[in-house]
Amino acid sequence: MTDAYCKLEARFARLSRYAHLGAMAGWDQLTLMPSGGSEARAAAIAELQVLMHESLTDDATRGLLDDVDPSTLDDTQRANLREMKREVDDARVLPPSLVEAQSLAGARGERAWRRCRADNDWQGFLEPFREVVRLAREEATIRAEAAGCSRYEALLQKFEPGMSVAELDRLFADMRQWLPGLLQEVVEHQRATVDYTTPRGPFPQQDQQRLGQRMMDWLGFDFEHGRLDVSLHPFCGGVPEDVRLTTRYREDECFSSLMGIIHETGHARYEQNLPAALRGQPAGKARSMAVHESQSLSFEMQLGRSAAFLRCLRPWLVEQFGDQPAFEADNLVRLAQRVEPGLIRVDADEVSYPAHILLRYDIERALIEGDIEVEEIPGLWDEGMQRLLGLDTRGNYRDGCLQDIHWTDGAFGYFPTYSLGAMLAAQLMAAARRERPDLDERIAAGDLKPLFYWLKTNVWQQGSLYDTDELIRRASGESLNPAHYRRHLRTRYLGE
Amino acid sequence: MTDAYCKLEARFARLSRYAHLGAMAGWDQLTLMPSGGSEARAAAIAELQVLMHESLTDDATRGLLDDVDPSTLDDTQRANLREMKREVDDARVLPPSLVEAQSLAGARGERAWRRCRADNDWQGFLEPFREVVRLAREEATIRAEAAGCSRYEALLQKFEPGMSVAELDRLFADMRQWLPGLLQEVVEHQRATVDYTTPRGPFPQQDQQRLGQRMMDWLGFDFEHGRLDVSLHPFCGGVPEDVRLTTRYREDECFSSLMGIIHETGHARYEQNLPAALRGQPAGKARSMAVHESQSLSFEMQLGRSAAFLRCLRPWLVEQFGDQPAFEADNLVRLAQRVEPGLIRVDADEVSYPAHILLRYDIERALIEGDIEVEEIPGLWDEGMQRLLGLDTRGNYRDGCLQDIHWTDGAFGYFPTYSLGAMLAAQLMAAARRERPDLDERIAAGDLKPLFYWLKTNVWQQGSLYDTDELIRRASGESLNPAHYRRHLRTRYLGE
Repeated sequence: MTDAYCKLEARFARLSRYAHLGAMAGWDQLTLMPSGGSEARAAAIAELQVLMHESLTDDATRGLLDDVDPSTLDDTQRANLREMKREVDDARVLPPSLVEAQSLAGARGERAWRRCRADNDWQGFLEPFREVVRLAREEATIRAEAAGCSRYEALLQKFEPGMSVAELDRLFADMRQWLPGLLQEVVEHQRATVDYTTPRGPFPQQDQQRLGQRMMDWLGFDFEHGRLDVSLHPFCGGVPEDVRLTTRYREDECFSSLMGIIHETGHARYEQNLPAALRGQPAGKARSMAVHESQSLSFEMQLGRSAAFLRCLRPWLVEQFGDQPAFEADNLVRLAQRVEPGLIRVDADEVSYPAHILLRYDIERALIEGDIEVEEIPGLWDEGMQRLLGLDTRGNYRDGCLQDIHWTDGAFGYFPTYSLGAMLAAQLMAAARRERPDLDERIAAGDLKPLFYWLKTNVWQQGSLYDTDELIRRASGESLNPAHYRRHLRTRYLGE
Repeated sequence: MTDAYCKLEARFARLSRYAHLGAMAGWDQLTLMPSGGSEARAAAIAELQVLMHESLTDDATRGLLDDVDPSTLDDTQRANLREMKREVDDARVLPPSLVEAQSLAGARGERAWRRCRADNDWQGFLEPFREVVRLAREEATIRAEAAGCSRYEALLQKFEPGMSVAELDRLFADMRQWLPGLLQEVVEHQRATVDYTTPRGPFPQQDQQRLGQRMMDWLGFDFEHGRLDVSLHPFCGGVPEDVRLTTRYREDECFSSLMGIIHETGHARYEQNLPAALRGQPAGKARSMAVHESQSLSFEMQLGRSAAFLRCLRPWLVEQFGDQPAFEADNLVRLAQRVEPGLIRVDADEVSYPAHILLRYDIERALIEGDIEVEEIPGLWDEGMQRLLGLDTRGNYRDGCLQDIHWTDGAFGYFPTYSLGAMLAAQLMAAARRERPDLDERIAAGDLKPLFYWLKTNVWQQGSLYDTDELIRRASGESLNPAHYRRHLRTRYLGE
């Protein structure tokens, strides 16, 4: 191990301490911050991003990376060096002025979106949004030139390193081919066979929160190193030592906050169980957004909406809210597995969810490549929703193209990772079942430890030691394969 | 205005954005952070402090300060330049390694204190505390050599720039002379004349919080730029654009949280009304801790415990908690103005409060000067409490020398500012009354605007444009004069 490597470790540890401050300021911004604090907060966060960018891109860091002799490093250190280089290369292509401009424009875009979404005001959102898109295209152009790839691919790789548009199109082409038929089949199947009772509220927020915290506890969330709070849009933020989950509550129903909490707890356990020995180092971070989503979806979809899990959940619901016909175990399963195409992505069922992603992927790719302009988005949205899910969204921006936060601060290239994560979750679950044939039996008995042990060993503790493809192959024996996802959907929703 | 001056403004604006991140991380640390996050948080905050220290002390900043031609600046800019120099000089004497060591040792000391205070465990606190004291003495020695003053004075000036130990001793000698007699007189006077009824609870936390927020609103707190939350020890944190107040609630009584909120709202209004044109610049900051405390005490003591104010408060209490004999207006005055020497500084009445400060001042000065060691503190504490307030604290560390947070993270030199602030609050109130002879009449009519307008004009909007003595002279016509404080106490508590 060389002196240069030690100095690099110290530099990246310092960066992770800066990132800690940014993560907490960002969490607060979305949970507690009064509206009048937004401008100063945006400026503070942008300043921090410029600082981190400067620190990553300065010549001293580059010089240290050149000085390291990899032959003196062990495997873990070599992996860490690879990830250090990736982060540095990633940062060095962008000028600091663009980093700052994007941070500020993103904060403005997000603020405008909050107001405009509430007012169903697409026109009012256009002006700040155009600037966000302009800067994203500038970033994409710079990155594409440096990487020798398309502009959209350059942004995609920020969230999913190693994923090409060609590979993504191959995976999605498979899904595009079977999804519409499957969706129709399931809707007809459920229309013929499934009837369900809706739980009757009110469900006081405090009670939902108490139940949510008990669920998190059961799911292994470490409350010594994290919290559950409230935000307009649920997310998992903070740092591995202090993971901040959020959810939102509606007192007329109790299921969406609960499923949201289970989802975010999957993200949280990944973060809380990243390799402690690599804390603060690039190789100690979560691998990619698709891998992250695979963990939240392993929790929410593979586990949380399974009949075995829902049967365990029943007594908890009864204890918290009293018994009612809707809490009967079979009804809970029907509720959690009902398929009903709707307008809102985050409320979508497992089968229609991919349609929401395909819609967004097509639009954001065309937007970044310059094939369309922002004014065309509502029309394309309406057309896509009609084609993919048979729904009319005309004039309803709030529940249409203004529903998501991602584009508002410039996170183009993120949406595909949700569906990659869903595919990966099914593939990982299949691999875990092969290794532990009693897995579903254990879950039905309320014992989640075998599943969590498998995920911890094969995913969480691996951090970024391997690239995504190798992580997936080591865990499941093959590269990402959408067949597992399709099989999972056909088994669960058509009983095959 | 020179190019160098503009560059300096940009540098200090950047520093204030870093400080924003530190303020929010520090607020979160004391309100919401789960215990397992403390080590990473302490490391992140220490890293930020080192960064800010580096930025303040680097040669480029020094060079820009040397390059500025003051004759090209207006008065405000000259004041800002003076404050920039003060901050830079203040930072340059300390090595970054000491800044980092103090930040980390302070965080450890504070963590140990939380545990040890709960367990009444002075012995367990000694080891981390010795390190905090060792580093504070190291800082004091370095600062004293640079400034050519005593070690304690060097620390005092961190919180109260321009205040010498000689001047402090002169002000305190005056108080030492009349305080014991006054206290005895008041206690005897109240024993003979005052009987009061204690409010009967319970007072649900939610109701206290609602009333507190209504009070803050009446007191002019801007909720678009701030929040009220809960912490173990009430404080006012955050940044001017987003001021974070905290309080704590006891459901068996409703007065202490309310008075605490009024106190912190005084700090908050100062912060929220600092000159907006100088935001992020040194001259735009609050002047000193004594001036800060003068604002919280103007709110809590001068205003909040006055008969005129308490009569306005009565209907709010009745509306929130229902009527009871204790809420009768005369009884509220007796409750808020009762004098009863007790063990706890933050619960002390206005007359015995200075005794708590004299005790701490004598001990911390001796400790920093090396005249005593930490092991001697409990003995000196017992002796002082016996002498000053006639109370026995032997063996009760929790309510004795372990009661305050200040020393635990190394804030030696802070305590005197409370009593300086109390003196200044009385002096400012007397000046406001001279200018607005109808002031008390207006307050009794529920109109607080004349008082707030006076404070805003004479204190809040002045930021750090003048040094403390000049600020006081411009506002009140004379330098700090403890006679106003004594007169206030004799008027309120002896009816003179």
